Amino acid sequence: MLTGHLLIGSQSLPGQNGQVRGINPATGDTLEPAFGLAGKAEVEHACALAWAAFDTYRETGLEQRAAFLEKIASNIADIGDALIERAMAETGLPRARLEGERGRTVGQLRLFAQEVREGSWLDARIDPAQPQRQPLPRSDLRQRHIAVGPVAVFGASNFPLAFSVAGGDTASALAAGCPVVVKAHSAHPGTSELVGRAIQDAVRACGLPQGVFSLLFAERGAAVDLVTDWRIKSVGFTGSRAGGMALVHAAAARREPIPVFAEMSSINPVFLLPAALAARAKSIGRNFIASLTMGAGQFCTNPGIVLALEGPDADAFLASAAKALKENVGATMLTPGIHAAYERGVAHLAANGKVKEVARGQQGATRHACQGALFITRAADFLADASMQEEVFGAASLVILCRSLQDMRDVAEQLEGQLTATLQMDDADADAARALLPALERKAGRILVNGYPTGVEVCHAMVHGGPFPATSDPRATSVGTLAIRRFLRPVCYQDLPEALLPEAIKPGNPLGLWRRVDGVLGKA
Amino acid sequence: MLTGHLLIGSQSLPGQNGQVRGINPATGDTLEPAFGLAGKAEVEHACALAWAAFDTYRETGLEQRAAFLEKIASNIADIGDALIERAMAETGLPRARLEGERGRTVGQLRLFAQEVREGSWLDARIDPAQPQRQPLPRSDLRQRHIAVGPVAVFGASNFPLAFSVAGGDTASALAAGCPVVVKAHSAHPGTSELVGRAIQDAVRACGLPQGVFSLLFAERGAAVDLVTDWRIKSVGFTGSRAGGMALVHAAAARREPIPVFAEMSSINPVFLLPAALAARAKSIGRNFIASLTMGAGQFCTNPGIVLALEGPDADAFLASAAKALKENVGATMLTPGIHAAYERGVAHLAANGKVKEVARGQQGATRHACQGALFITRAADFLADASMQEEVFGAASLVILCRSLQDMRDVAEQLEGQLTATLQMDDADADAARALLPALERKAGRILVNGYPTGVEVCHAMVHGGPFPATSDPRATSVGTLAIRRFLRPVCYQDLPEALLPEAIKPGNPLGLWRRVDGVLGKA
Repeated sequence: MLTGHLLIGSQSLPGQNGQVRGINPATGDTLEPAFGLAGKAEVEHACALAWAAFDTYRETGLEQRAAFLEKIASNIADIGDALIERAMAETGLPRARLEGERGRTVGQLRLFAQEVREGSWLDARIDPAQPQRQPLPRSDLRQRHIAVGPVAVFGASNFPLAFSVAGGDTASALAAGCPVVVKAHSAHPGTSELVGRAIQDAVRACGLPQGVFSLLFAERGAAVDLVTDWRIKSVGFTGSRAGGMALVHAAAARREPIPVFAEMSSINPVFLLPAALAARAKSIGRNFIASLTMGAGQFCTNPGIVLALEGPDADAFLASAAKALKENVGATMLTPGIHAAYERGVAHLAANGKVKEVARGQQGATRHACQGALFITRAADFLADASMQEEVFGAASLVILCRSLQDMRDVAEQLEGQLTATLQMDDADADAARALLPALERKAGRILVNGYPTGVEVCHAMVHGGPFPATSDPRATSVGTLAIRRFLRPVCYQDLPEALLPEAIKPGNPLGLWRRVDGVLGKA
Repeated sequence: MLTGHLLIGSQSLPGQNGQVRGINPATGDTLEPAFGLAGKAEVEHACALAWAAFDTYRETGLEQRAAFLEKIASNIADIGDALIERAMAETGLPRARLEGERGRTVGQLRLFAQEVREGSWLDARIDPAQPQRQPLPRSDLRQRHIAVGPVAVFGASNFPLAFSVAGGDTASALAAGCPVVVKAHSAHPGTSELVGRAIQDAVRACGLPQGVFSLLFAERGAAVDLVTDWRIKSVGFTGSRAGGMALVHAAAARREPIPVFAEMSSINPVFLLPAALAARAKSIGRNFIASLTMGAGQFCTNPGIVLALEGPDADAFLASAAKALKENVGATMLTPGIHAAYERGVAHLAANGKVKEVARGQQGATRHACQGALFITRAADFLADASMQEEVFGAASLVILCRSLQDMRDVAEQLEGQLTATLQMDDADADAARALLPALERKAGRILVNGYPTGVEVCHAMVHGGPFPATSDPRATSVGTLAIRRFLRPVCYQDLPEALLPEAIKPGNPLGLWRRVDGVLGKA
């Protein structure tokens, strides 16, 4: 069923620049088939097709584009169990998790289809002519947003469906009207091919230009070729800080620099406020470990640091967390490389003289299992050592004991940018929470109360973003409908004859959009 | 009346790091007083105050913030003729132009006040909790936009009021809730101080934290210190490509890279389509020269290239344009440096073997007057020589003779990014226009029909932006209400108790905002 081919437009072509194979991380076994890698020629081929498709695709009607997204969704669902089984083999993730992720991926595409139809992302604005205005008449001015151009998408390893070939970056770029060239993550090439074929089939079924989508397997050099191809106008990336910054720098060094949205690194602080900790230290400890160890800790929003006031409640929390962690059996990590990096990160923390081990989880039965790790330090030591802020990707977390709420605020102020910040609080903690909020708003894209940061809802209000290094652009999100905005730019039309005006801003509002006319929002 | 001081928060302090003086470009005379320059310490002082003001200022109520913008506007108007006279002396611009620009500046501040009150820029979104949802309940998720942080604004030389201390960047950043530190343009320090004091007074009158606004006179080193200060979170710049890119690179090299919106370089192509040219070559020639020479050509949207099909209509256009240009008396340019750069640019074009001079304007009577220049080349030569695309800031333009409409489209495709693209067309040109439009949309932020690009309306639908090198971020504009979006970022609030929720997303919609609830826009 799998060919190991590149999907370039409507074609299926063998890559000639080396090979990659999936690896079963539970066993270390390599999987069939081999996937041929793209070189510069294949990158250029995909970009040329994307460019050729761009003007047509960006002007597809809202209904046609929405139907295309829905067709991708149903095609993915129609792959059936073969997709789940291949993804399980390539990632070590359990069936239930992957079935849930498939539901999320399909739902995300359908949500973007709805969003395309709703149309307020076009931000249509009309300032009608004022020919009588003194001292100068005003022209007729209309604005809509258009797609920025072909987008390069780099799939993540940790969500082989929802942040990969047909994940949030692809869905939002296609929704915006941008052709997409995906560089598949080498950790799940077979899953990528299956999903890529679902998109390729949808392009054909919907009668769209073939260049709307291509899927490349590639090593680093070809990935940089992709980002620096002149036809690529934006980049979506989810992965490591080093990987993201390499693309940011490559994009900035182009003759025409382009924006990159890279979602990179976050340690997602959890603040345990005193009244909440006094009331339920034990359950917080248990639930925190459940969040920490979920999916072997391989989430961008994994809670990597926890802050608590020292004292008996913190001790009770630590005891509960330690107990829960010791019962946790390590699950297989996504790749041998991720597992090795996790082990290095844990060893680095363990070797820090200011950090003590609280507990370790149980060794897993599989070859690259994540043995959970919980450490503790003091706020003063954390503040003095920036290396403690480095993300350890996996089920490791560092508890920071604070002497006061001021300590907590000092740590909050010194944190780098984050995807999330969490407060565990009761009513009596309201003042402490209020005092922390300004810093959390400045530092994080999402603030949670009495939950845990793992689990990112795909909806309108979600922000999966945040100040650097959480992302390379704090003004955007890669999850939720606002993600479409990354791939749009405004264009103003002055005094165009009606026949030349785009539908979105024609007189009479033929698309029935929300539009601002002289600044007033309405559907007139 | 003028002190030559830096305005740092509520203080007026003499800069100790050298001096700059205004120069009357018409005479070359230096003007009193000397303005002391900021060093690293003053930059840090201003940034520290801006940071201290940020949390308070960004949470000011919409009405309070709008009133503040209106107070700045009335304070500027209240300066009266002293402002106009100082600006005339420093810039060589005539009274009527500066009075118009003052009106635009004041109107722009008032428009942003209205925009703040209207509130749809907050993009408030609410996805209510779904506790019964299967398989997992949904949390209560709410989103609003907040200010990104203190903004560094670099005023432009060519609009000493509308793109300077209280110009579009400052107005939109203050509207977004960002404190602003302005680095004044050295070409109009006195004008800058007068306007800076108007803002400083408004900060005091409105009871805002002093750090909401500072004004610095500074050389390049201190300007880079400003952009790289950790408390600065975004940059607005209008000026040259070299100057803009220097800030872009400085911002990208920070430990925390930050976004820069730099409006830089554009040659604003004007396409003369055949039927329009046949019908009115003479008036097009005359009106084009009026646009070209307005303000000595010192507009970002100055029409630097014109495309026409070769033949008798093009000849008639050229004859008319040449006649009009020969009658044009050069007006004083803004600075000796700008004048020298203009002369170099014109000489560079004149020395190009593939370029011919069509006409020159008359020498002006003043010392740094801009002698207009019109050149001609062939499409094939233009396509073969990228240097012909370099902006010559001033009243110089290059007519490109095309053999066919295909030539025109080829030139359009090869252009760098532009602020504007203009079509002169009649009904019979509709097909030719339609064939050009996709390229123009990809290349330019604003497309005009039967107008000229100079003259940028401040309104809701305006886009003063475009792909690189027109700006450093094609997804934004520096003129019009959409400019506010550059300085905002989304934050999501998950399950926050009502008491901690920001007003914009509280239950019951206390601010009466347009909000999306489960994706549906309304005021419920």
